[in-house]
Amino acid sequence: MPRFFMAGTSLAGGRAFIRGKDAEHVRVLRLRPGEDVVICDGAGKDYRCRIVSALSDEVEAEVVEVVPCRGEPSVAVTVYAGLPKGERADFLIQKCVEAGAGRIVFFDCERCVAKLDGRSVDKKLERFNRISQSAAEQSGRGIIPPVEYIRSYVEMLDSAIKSEACLFMYETGEDRAPLREAIEAAGDFKSVSLITGPEGGFSLAEARLAKGAGAVLCSMGERIFRCETAPVVAVTAVMYAKGEL
Amino acid sequence: MPRFFMAGTSLAGGRAFIRGKDAEHVRVLRLRPGEDVVICDGAGKDYRCRIVSALSDEVEAEVVEVVPCRGEPSVAVTVYAGLPKGERADFLIQKCVEAGAGRIVFFDCERCVAKLDGRSVDKKLERFNRISQSAAEQSGRGIIPPVEYIRSYVEMLDSAIKSEACLFMYETGEDRAPLREAIEAAGDFKSVSLITGPEGGFSLAEARLAKGAGAVLCSMGERIFRCETAPVVAVTAVMYAKGEL
Repeated sequence: MPRFFMAGTSLAGGRAFIRGKDAEHVRVLRLRPGEDVVICDGAGKDYRCRIVSALSDEVEAEVVEVVPCRGEPSVAVTVYAGLPKGERADFLIQKCVEAGAGRIVFFDCERCVAKLDGRSVDKKLERFNRISQSAAEQSGRGIIPPVEYIRSYVEMLDSAIKSEACLFMYETGEDRAPLREAIEAAGDFKSVSLITGPEGGFSLAEARLAKGAGAVLCSMGERIFRCETAPVVAVTAVMYAKGEL
Repeated sequence: MPRFFMAGTSLAGGRAFIRGKDAEHVRVLRLRPGEDVVICDGAGKDYRCRIVSALSDEVEAEVVEVVPCRGEPSVAVTVYAGLPKGERADFLIQKCVEAGAGRIVFFDCERCVAKLDGRSVDKKLERFNRISQSAAEQSGRGIIPPVEYIRSYVEMLDSAIKSEACLFMYETGEDRAPLREAIEAAGDFKSVSLITGPEGGFSLAEARLAKGAGAVLCSMGERIFRCETAPVVAVTAVMYAKGEL
């Protein structure tokens, strides 16, 4: 069933009015009166609605039932990823949202090739958040995971360690726990930060800073993941561990 | 360290001769005498070699040590995927190889939009296998997972049920086990087939055929994965369960 987030919709007296881009989308999908759509309030509730009239600029639908959105996992996963180049960032967002991430934060670090300057940040983030919304709609999520940018590595760590568990994916060194062990050792957490590097990985200094701040350094087995694949694999590992798969 | 598969290389008397495209690759990477490369025999063994001379058409290197390739998982995973359109297939191959799949088989089914006719099959498969090789080199695999095409749905099932476990990812219906339960119930398997659908998913008839053939119908949680994401998530789930992450 087609899903829309509340943006452009107002719910009043058991009726939903879909306007703007979403109304356009209803037209593109050729939905007719009598057909059902789901309107999600972006806070975990789904409104199943039946279309009453579909005009080009406004679609009216009546609310049939309100149910908790089942697409939201029981654990809040924030992905902190060293900003990758070009399409890799788009891919990372789309796949992490599908896999169940609740928030994505890009950051700058030593080996980041991609750079965002003051002017390009807003434009990029707008685009990134559109990708997240579209992936959230397609995969049946109950929220639109926000995509953010924290330039400073230290501020990023400061934010990441606020989750109940904070796991830092690191490619080298002896001093690492296998990801599965780290997840299991973290016990009954409800929120987790997963930190992954850019194309060239993290420097030793960055890994030490992370460890010093309280993150657990993790290995991801014997295969080397591309920077856009690692966070998807890490999110999936958490979902598996938490009975979400 | 740069990795090459044996193609174009011959090992004789403790010396490796790298020719053709791989020699070109050495030049592109600007590797010089004294630097090390890994030559993988494609059967699970790694030859660490030191470059002795690097000419434009032939690179000579001496074998320093021979070690088992650590990039090979302990479980043989075959992904059977309904052939998706365009770049989704490329993506699926690249990410499944990174995640640890040992073989990828595309097949045709009711809702496949992408079709391969007799002439296009060979060309496509050549391309697909090049993508697999490149992903295998990049991610440190010990084999190049072959990419194949089985047109017939029934033949595909026939092949898939030869693995010790055969899991069929199905989007709807009550009669499904969560993927994690199915993996755990399958016990101590050394080989597994993971079957995933094309863009439009599987038909009920196809799911029934699979079940009748002995596959276990599985759900993948409450989020809906794109057809190119589902196999990557399924492979990762197996790797997690088998202690490979």
